Amino acid sequence: MAIVNVSIVPLGTRTSSISKYVARALKVVQRQRVVSYKLTPMGTVLEGDLDKVLSVVRQMHESGFEKGVRRVLTTIAIDDRRDKKATMESKVQSVERKLRRS
Amino acid sequence: MAIVNVSIVPLGTRTSSISKYVARALKVVQRQRVVSYKLTPMGTVLEGDLDKVLSVVRQMHESGFEKGVRRVLTTIAIDDRRDKKATMESKVQSVERKLRRS
Amino acid sequence: MAIVNVSIVPLGTRTSSISKYVARALKVVQRQRVVSYKLTPMGTVLEGDLDKVLSVVRQMHESGFEKGVRRVLTTIAIDDRRDKKATMESKVQSVERKLRRS
Amino acid sequence: MAIVNVSIVPLGTRTSSISKYVARALKVVQRQRVVSYKLTPMGTVLEGDLDKVLSVVRQMHESGFEKGVRRVLTTIAIDDRRDKKATMESKVQSVERKLRRS
Repeated sequence: MAIVNVSIVPLGTRTSSISKYVARALKVVQRQRVVSYKLTPMGTVLEGDLDKVLSVVRQMHESGFEKGVRRVLTTIAIDDRRDKKATMESKVQSVERKLRRS
Repeated sequence: MAIVNVSIVPLGTRTSSISKYVARALKVVQRQRVVSYKLTPMGTVLEGDLDKVLSVVRQMHESGFEKGVRRVLTTIAIDDRRDKKATMESKVQSVERKLRRS
Repeated sequence: MAIVNVSIVPLGTRTSSISKYVARALKVVQRQRVVSYKLTPMGTVLEGDLDKVLSVVRQMHESGFEKGVRRVLTTIAIDDRRDKKATMESKVQSVERKLRRS
Repeated sequence: MAIVNVSIVPLGTRTSSISKYVARALKVVQRQRVVSYKLTPMGTVLEGDLDKVLSVVRQMHESGFEKGVRRVLTTIAIDDRRDKKATMESKVQSVERKLRRS
């Protein structure tokens, strides 16, 4: 199980708003059922088997090229832990638990 | 107003769990009242005046060096928009609104 | 053709030096002949067909798990341009040309 | 001494070429003498005292807003090591030395 943050940025879009491109990439995520996700203010966090997650990321990247876009910058951060099962939720809870104790 | 994602990673920690370091960095954020924040599974998102946010990020980075840590990797993504007021919440809502319409 | 920066960071390694892990990931790159590369102080830049590059990145990530490492953070930045052929070299030259003119 | 990779991306630029913005940010770096730098295909690597580097990064970010740009995305990766002096050059050499030995 890996947890992955992905951010899709189209260049040369004329306006500085890119939310419609983010929405299209998110639609790619919603169309499948293997990878869980969470939309944050700075990207989309995906959780699941790493190869399945990367396959979804690959499609999200491709979705950025629609509507005349000719250049897409995609940033991916992979957190892949194999000594214990970590989920998007357990990662946040682990930090919050330590905050309460300190 | 800028929205910034920050991730603090200490190296050479012996165990692969780093949530206590993340908790300490988050405590730095909670001690001040100028910058809003949101903890996500892949980092902490901050919102506020860019220079104030960067000052908090600088202190978060420094907090990683406690407890014998000698190397810290910090990743920062800044989204700085000056044509309209964007907040952590408005960015997520803008994407969700476009998703519903499509 | 895409240009991709990749950084492999193993966690829980005892010492704060991780160059042997970077060397192992780079060996993965050197063993193949499809994707060009350049080692920089902050990562490895790869150039080639995007799917081939991503396949190499996937193997680099996996190489981080050897020698008892149980958690690997991998950061990937993809610059994928389809309106003209851009290479690692042409990107740097384009910036330097503009610097000289200004 | 810290080593920092920085990438400046202006949004809403009409064309997908952004090298003139990168050149302007690099000019900011060249105008000062405290921080060393190296241009790579995926960003500018800076080396020096962390606070001085971050001050240069802050000015590079600001330079992205000229010529009518209203939104700039800046990505910063900080590698801050305090157990030994690491430079841009020593980091690359350390990996190359391990590659030759293996």
